Amino acid sequence: MVSALHRQVVLVSRPEGIPQASDFAVVEAETRPPGPGEVLVRNEFLSVDPAMRGWVSPVANYSEPVAIGAVMRSHSVGRVVESRSDAYAVGDLVLGMTGWTEMATVPATTVDRRLPDDDLPASWALGVLGLTGVTAFFGMTEVGRPRVGDTVVVSTAAGAVGSVAGQLAGLAGCRTVGIAGGADKVRLCLEEFGYDAAVDYRSPTFAADLAAACPAGIDVYYDNTGGAISDVVLTLINRRARIVVCGTASIASWDPWPVGPLATRHLLTKSARMEGFLFFDYEHRLDEAVAALSALLRTGRLRHREDILEGIESAPDAIAGLYRGENLGKRVIRLRPEDGA
Amino acid sequence: MVSALHRQVVLVSRPEGIPQASDFAVVEAETRPPGPGEVLVRNEFLSVDPAMRGWVSPVANYSEPVAIGAVMRSHSVGRVVESRSDAYAVGDLVLGMTGWTEMATVPATTVDRRLPDDDLPASWALGVLGLTGVTAFFGMTEVGRPRVGDTVVVSTAAGAVGSVAGQLAGLAGCRTVGIAGGADKVRLCLEEFGYDAAVDYRSPTFAADLAAACPAGIDVYYDNTGGAISDVVLTLINRRARIVVCGTASIASWDPWPVGPLATRHLLTKSARMEGFLFFDYEHRLDEAVAALSALLRTGRLRHREDILEGIESAPDAIAGLYRGENLGKRVIRLRPEDGA
Repeated sequence: MVSALHRQVVLVSRPEGIPQASDFAVVEAETRPPGPGEVLVRNEFLSVDPAMRGWVSPVANYSEPVAIGAVMRSHSVGRVVESRSDAYAVGDLVLGMTGWTEMATVPATTVDRRLPDDDLPASWALGVLGLTGVTAFFGMTEVGRPRVGDTVVVSTAAGAVGSVAGQLAGLAGCRTVGIAGGADKVRLCLEEFGYDAAVDYRSPTFAADLAAACPAGIDVYYDNTGGAISDVVLTLINRRARIVVCGTASIASWDPWPVGPLATRHLLTKSARMEGFLFFDYEHRLDEAVAALSALLRTGRLRHREDILEGIESAPDAIAGLYRGENLGKRVIRLRPEDGA
Repeated sequence: MVSALHRQVVLVSRPEGIPQASDFAVVEAETRPPGPGEVLVRNEFLSVDPAMRGWVSPVANYSEPVAIGAVMRSHSVGRVVESRSDAYAVGDLVLGMTGWTEMATVPATTVDRRLPDDDLPASWALGVLGLTGVTAFFGMTEVGRPRVGDTVVVSTAAGAVGSVAGQLAGLAGCRTVGIAGGADKVRLCLEEFGYDAAVDYRSPTFAADLAAACPAGIDVYYDNTGGAISDVVLTLINRRARIVVCGTASIASWDPWPVGPLATRHLLTKSARMEGFLFFDYEHRLDEAVAALSALLRTGRLRHREDILEGIESAPDAIAGLYRGENLGKRVIRLRPEDGA
């Protein structure tokens, strides 16, 4: 039996740049019983990702922007509590783009997949065993293609994607150098994620620090930031370097489109490759990545952090908080079992 | 028997931007007989290439800049007239980095290779069967990797590299769209090099013209220019597009380093690849390219143009002329048999 009301987070204004708490509202909504082919999911964890900035941006992106008044788009993990679909049964733990809502009545096709419901925590499917970890896995292995002895630099090196990317390069026999903002994150890079060196991009000596940390130049750059950080990295690349364009977190807005030093000359003189990719390019190979990452996690060779916010009321400010750099690990929102019940 | 004097072109001032006639001087020099391991070559053709701007630039590049007072670096084709090397015999037709000089006494290692001395003109080794053609061959086939049905855009489409790149894409079953400057070159693209469409980047409607010429978007961009032309092209790329960074002819100077719209966002949202390369990356596979291009030339499936200047006295202004866009085809300088003899 499901109560009549639950809470959800809707977009109330179109952000300019980074979405702020005031761009969202927590509202009550009626819980609708599933129709034919639908399931009712009680969410347990909501995801918070830097990419969400793009999802509410008016600028053309991977997908249509979230409409004003609509529930904020997100991946969420929950349990099926009612089902009128053959695909999912009551009790199934599922991951899907069900949004920032406590209860979601959705077509079964909105659910991405059933989760194993095993020894590993369910929330990890939103991070190290989901979008961020799988992104890092394919970005590093398929696009970056690190080789033993390479120097691999990662920006937002302590972040959910960066920390996995950096560790995978380390496991591949590379010298790994993390770029992060502030002493806490630099320490996290060194002590938690095993980077061989880490530099603070906020330091006035950043360019010299990075050069000193990369005495043999840079073979792979896993770029989560773009902007001024990447401009410095590009000056240090080796011949045949690979630049993995995974994110542009340092760019606050693409309207107007920002300008910066042209990358082409570096690519030309170094015969280097700069290549973007999306999680969705590799989604059909998700099982492969999840299996590899799970094995590394179970044997302790891969470490990760979560930053868990409590309750749906923490959602509106959660994206802005990412861009303030306040999280140390993949940010998720844990919903209270009693809410929406 | 070799006369005592010949003419050569030396660099007399360090150009800012594009090297002008006044940056060079034609001087007389003594013809030195070859020492042990050396050959004396009488040049027949001197090459003129856009890349020469980089060779005299003070900005770090592929190689050390040509010194003030030194003979201008260039590929040249000539015949060995005296030899004290086992590698080459008198009468051999050779290609080497012997410079803008009528006569060159050089170590045999300065010679790149013996030319076949066959039915195809010797000067072609400086163009369609040399640096430019081989560059286009590997840039298009190995970096651009066109597939049947792709839309392939080429900048400086009527140029020595671009015209070969475009024709190779056409032979691979692609829709080819040339970008060129001015009505003459646009006509050359369509009538001589078989592009399916060609647009004039100097037109005020260039962006709209290019979009109209690429109704299915752009899969491969063979970029010889960089700059504003490429900024427009990038807005039209398809998912998994490949941008071949072959040259940056539209950029007059890299000091200060120019800025422009950031490319990273296009690469990210389209999972696209932007990759630089140099002729030297593929030099070990030169025979493969020369064989393929020779076959296409002999059967008339590949067309090319030469722009032949007469006499070494035409050399000083020859690079500036390239950047004025006055040549229609690969520019070479033909030396008179009687000069330097």
